[in-house]
Amino acid sequence: MSSSPRTTGQDRLWSVDEHLEDILTAVRPLEPIELQLLDAQGCVLVDDVTVPVSLPPFDNSSMDGYAVRVADVAGASEEFPAVLDVVGDVAAGQADLVQVGPGQAARIMTGAPLPPGAETVVPVEWTDGGLGEGPVTGMRARAQAPEGAEGQVHVHRPAEARAHVRAKGSDVRAGDLALEAGTVLGPPQIALLAAIGRGTVRVRPRPRVVVVSTGSELVQPDEQLADGQIYDSNSFALTAAARDAGAIAYRVGAVADDADTLRATIEDQLVRADILVTTGGVSVGAYDVVKEALSHVGDEDEAGSGIEFRKLAMQPGKPQGFGSIGPDHTPLLALPGNPVSSYVSFELFVRPAIRTLMGLADVHRPRTTATLISGKALTSPKGRRQFLRGTYADGSVSPVGGAGSHLVAALAHADALIVVPEGTESVEPGTEVEVVLLG
Amino acid sequence: MSSSPRTTGQDRLWSVDEHLEDILTAVRPLEPIELQLLDAQGCVLVDDVTVPVSLPPFDNSSMDGYAVRVADVAGASEEFPAVLDVVGDVAAGQADLVQVGPGQAARIMTGAPLPPGAETVVPVEWTDGGLGEGPVTGMRARAQAPEGAEGQVHVHRPAEARAHVRAKGSDVRAGDLALEAGTVLGPPQIALLAAIGRGTVRVRPRPRVVVVSTGSELVQPDEQLADGQIYDSNSFALTAAARDAGAIAYRVGAVADDADTLRATIEDQLVRADILVTTGGVSVGAYDVVKEALSHVGDEDEAGSGIEFRKLAMQPGKPQGFGSIGPDHTPLLALPGNPVSSYVSFELFVRPAIRTLMGLADVHRPRTTATLISGKALTSPKGRRQFLRGTYADGSVSPVGGAGSHLVAALAHADALIVVPEGTESVEPGTEVEVVLLG
Repeated sequence: MSSSPRTTGQDRLWSVDEHLEDILTAVRPLEPIELQLLDAQGCVLVDDVTVPVSLPPFDNSSMDGYAVRVADVAGASEEFPAVLDVVGDVAAGQADLVQVGPGQAARIMTGAPLPPGAETVVPVEWTDGGLGEGPVTGMRARAQAPEGAEGQVHVHRPAEARAHVRAKGSDVRAGDLALEAGTVLGPPQIALLAAIGRGTVRVRPRPRVVVVSTGSELVQPDEQLADGQIYDSNSFALTAAARDAGAIAYRVGAVADDADTLRATIEDQLVRADILVTTGGVSVGAYDVVKEALSHVGDEDEAGSGIEFRKLAMQPGKPQGFGSIGPDHTPLLALPGNPVSSYVSFELFVRPAIRTLMGLADVHRPRTTATLISGKALTSPKGRRQFLRGTYADGSVSPVGGAGSHLVAALAHADALIVVPEGTESVEPGTEVEVVLLG
Repeated sequence: MSSSPRTTGQDRLWSVDEHLEDILTAVRPLEPIELQLLDAQGCVLVDDVTVPVSLPPFDNSSMDGYAVRVADVAGASEEFPAVLDVVGDVAAGQADLVQVGPGQAARIMTGAPLPPGAETVVPVEWTDGGLGEGPVTGMRARAQAPEGAEGQVHVHRPAEARAHVRAKGSDVRAGDLALEAGTVLGPPQIALLAAIGRGTVRVRPRPRVVVVSTGSELVQPDEQLADGQIYDSNSFALTAAARDAGAIAYRVGAVADDADTLRATIEDQLVRADILVTTGGVSVGAYDVVKEALSHVGDEDEAGSGIEFRKLAMQPGKPQGFGSIGPDHTPLLALPGNPVSSYVSFELFVRPAIRTLMGLADVHRPRTTATLISGKALTSPKGRRQFLRGTYADGSVSPVGGAGSHLVAALAHADALIVVPEGTESVEPGTEVEVVLLG
């Protein structure tokens, strides 16, 4: 068909996969920056991180108890306790440590360094805690009972060498690989980075997404509707969806259908945009201002510059624009204006673009197959890949609402998209269908 | 056992389920507030929301084309087109509409109101677009070609009544239930609320979580370690985990082991806390400052006031504190200080508490069963519910690292917790085990 003059350029129908591939080929991961650990949550590490210091950095006690020599507690029992002289306390964080000699014990806290001379730790529950009245369940607070750091302790059980001792380097050793480049930083990864002393980390930042809705019919929520007007929902939905994808998103209120205003708005927003998303104004009407304003913005001498408008073999979401704009060639996706079309287009094209900017390996929503539960066959236009809204549970999917791209109420009750391939015009109930899980 | 003086009060072992139940019984959902739509993302709706205005609010065109009378295009073909006088444009958002009489057509844009007199819409692709040169693929922009709104149009195909017309109320009708109380507001729900004109919405706010780590041995990352010191990782990990659970989280740097300082810090933080989380200082040592500072803070005349410290039949995470503090009875969870203990305790107790504050119905991590893949049997102390770190994939789970509660490196490579019940001391490879998916 591409030899026919009727199907070249803007009149050709592009497949969903062709369009997506063009977007993902053009969009590059953002340049990495050094961020404070908690600012890097959800971001992708760009370098391997090596352990600079072994963890734990020193032998330390895993229990509250007494640091002793093995021979001194050999054969100890409640009836025949080992009686040791308490030479002091070893608290966590303490640097000057008492020496534990034969017949001596140091009271030691969890995490405190094993003092010199000590070979093992007996938990406080295996002792009289220095009170001389049988086994105890814990120590009294130092502040209330400073005498606990002196006197004598009765030990009721023996302990092997290095019992209740966490050895230096038993978690990680200096020089080990802590985290690989490409790791997404969640709470446990942040825990490890902090534990090895990394206060900042080099990651790809969250992309800044600017969402601009267009349409002279659009009114902000809470305002009064006049004749012919509707509420702007796309700018809210896509800002929320961009955040959901991991971005920092800025909502720009609806812009009226005037090409100069739209161009000025976009140029104004470029300074805070890693990617721009517009909705509306991309179809074949006489007031399709996005197409009018952006069709000729590129420098034609520079490859990859400018916005191209296409018709896609999909429903909803046939008209789409994609390209780059401004001095930094900021990517711009121009989505159709119907609420369902724009949302589905976001899921299929913008979300993967955002996640590519973040440097994530996995940019797509999960997909699965499911059995279609429906009172009647689904119909789909020939030659179009159709994305119907559905609810998925336990391997089955049911359509919600109809195919109309204005059915935003049904969308709000869906958690999946049912994919009907280009070659299929009818899907019988009970058929296995492909499903995109919106999570 | 509860009749024995040795097992009452603080010495009794509490089950994981008992402790969790006490927390979830005490923690109440936060009072709702009215929030801007995008500030309510991820929050739970507290009231049913009714549709105030039907969507679409008026009959409108689903295509760019011409609004005509059915009889005028009956039998039209490319060879024998219907020739109609174009009486003007109808753009989206337009209030003053042209009247379409017999033999007339109004050029109409997607989303524009169906003008009076018109009965149906023919897409522009079914016409010559007024150019007199065969079928076109779209309209020229109004700004470039104002003559498109006048002259004549040749229509090449007939159209049934109300073809390409979206009927008023076909999405939702005024008075319909838009969203039920309890709905979590994601992008599609925000789309619907905006579409029906709701700029603000009544939800339970995100809880503000203050995370305080304690321990004189703790040093901030990027600082130099002295003898006996380690890096504070808990305050970073739990702040990240609290955000991950849906909260607004504030990290308070590590507090040294001094009861007065800790009490002052907590009192200072209360003003911005819906829930407080501390780590460390809850065990049986002489420097366990959280226990010392908070054991007697409650007003004993007031039920539910004060912090209770317990030993739980679990590993890791045996020592735990829970209660409320301050004039507003702010919930406080005191977790143990070992990094793995505090993280596992967060997952089991704090995350459900945060999600309860948010008013979510589903407060727990998903669980599943998986086949244990391991070179050797797992061992677990009798009478303790053990939570081992593991990696889960396709119905199988493999342990990562050992049981030690200081093994933070292994935690960073786990995505699941393997649950070994209280009555089980050994689990053979190939056994089905319960798994908590950390997602």
